[in-house]
Amino acid sequence: MKERPFILITNDDGVFAKGINALIEVALPFGDVVVFAPDAARSGMSNAITPHCALTYAKLSSEEGLTIYSCTGTPTDCVKLASHVLFQEKKPDLLLSGINHGSNASVNVIYSGTMGAVFEGCMNGIPSIGFSLCDHNWDADFSQSVPYIQKVIKNTLENPLPLNVCLNVNIPKGEIKGVKVCRQALGYWDEEYESRQDKNGQTGYWLTGYFVCRDTNVEDTDDWALANGYATIVPCNVDMSDKMYISAIKHWEKVF
Amino acid sequence: MKERPFILITNDDGVFAKGINALIEVALPFGDVVVFAPDAARSGMSNAITPHCALTYAKLSSEEGLTIYSCTGTPTDCVKLASHVLFQEKKPDLLLSGINHGSNASVNVIYSGTMGAVFEGCMNGIPSIGFSLCDHNWDADFSQSVPYIQKVIKNTLENPLPLNVCLNVNIPKGEIKGVKVCRQALGYWDEEYESRQDKNGQTGYWLTGYFVCRDTNVEDTDDWALANGYATIVPCNVDMSDKMYISAIKHWEKVF
Repeated sequence: MKERPFILITNDDGVFAKGINALIEVALPFGDVVVFAPDAARSGMSNAITPHCALTYAKLSSEEGLTIYSCTGTPTDCVKLASHVLFQEKKPDLLLSGINHGSNASVNVIYSGTMGAVFEGCMNGIPSIGFSLCDHNWDADFSQSVPYIQKVIKNTLENPLPLNVCLNVNIPKGEIKGVKVCRQALGYWDEEYESRQDKNGQTGYWLTGYFVCRDTNVEDTDDWALANGYATIVPCNVDMSDKMYISAIKHWEKVF
Repeated sequence: MKERPFILITNDDGVFAKGINALIEVALPFGDVVVFAPDAARSGMSNAITPHCALTYAKLSSEEGLTIYSCTGTPTDCVKLASHVLFQEKKPDLLLSGINHGSNASVNVIYSGTMGAVFEGCMNGIPSIGFSLCDHNWDADFSQSVPYIQKVIKNTLENPLPLNVCLNVNIPKGEIKGVKVCRQALGYWDEEYESRQDKNGQTGYWLTGYFVCRDTNVEDTDDWALANGYATIVPCNVDMSDKMYISAIKHWEKVF
């Protein structure tokens, strides 16, 4: 009998978030699950690591086919530390991160702790997928996402991702029209900090802001697809080199 | 008379690091410089942002052509907050980040706070360059880097980078043979946490580890070039979409 796949699950909203528990439920029929996730919310942590202080972890529960750990680190730390303390013998067959409470589409992929964990798994040769629901609500309804996540997991187990490629899956809130495999929309966050003075007269700045899409009315982006009711799958590569621009400035080598 | 370029400088080693002060010296002849950098070391922060607590900043000094601020945030926060409080009228002509104490070549680009600031500037349409010296020493000697950094700045001011493209420049320690424009080497960090028990018997894990390059003996990577005595320029793109793999799994759309 073929061994059941071994699935590592993490996130950036913390081990007690509703989203990760929804993802555990979806993953359990596919294999044995180990959860190794931050002990509290670590949103916006990107691929941050913790070089200067010690990490700790704790086993929260263990039953047949499901063991849950919490860790004091970032999502990327979770993947690194789990690999070190649990998986020296056998790598996971799959890493799932999420389900994030909120979109990780377009340039959010750069800031996302959910996707940070995915990139970490990917660099380590583990097929890795991030799932996000476009609803920041702490009590968001993940039920409509379930059949889509099931199919993405099934497809990926049957067709392993190439080295250095991982998937960023975003799911719209409400009715889902279908799925688009597409590219990341380009743009930026225009920050509008809220400033408030504390009792000592020191001004503090709280991050707000809104996304400005430069790829407007372009139908091959995740931003367009989500706005039009589709779930999106963006294959991402951890190689950030711009091959075209390497050729464009290759002649710079001569001026040095 | 043409206006002098306006240059924003930040880093992830903190405003008092030797590396950023070396970069300020190199940049001053090129334009008016504003430094907006973390008030202490924020290494390994990637593109992390601070969504849940207030940032503050302080002016440390101001003289003709050079103003220096420190900020409580991450390198990415520094670029965002500086843009909000200082640059609403006019964007910087150039963002420089570094000089980092230590390599940001190969997959380090993913974890680097230095490069996090560069990606942030890049997404905001500011030509952005990260500089790193392959020497972690706090008292590293940056003098041999100077003529290389000067030429990269000059080239970039004369030939502005395309939107969404930025530069990751790494400089070897010691003698420099020349410059290679190349791609990011692929691989991963094999973590070897040091574990120590605290006085309560709790085990803490400290990140160590070593880089495992999958692109061995490949002469077009930054890892090879640095090991062979060359400074490296890797053009990076903030679009992480893998265009080839989008085509490869486009048919998945039909199974949903």
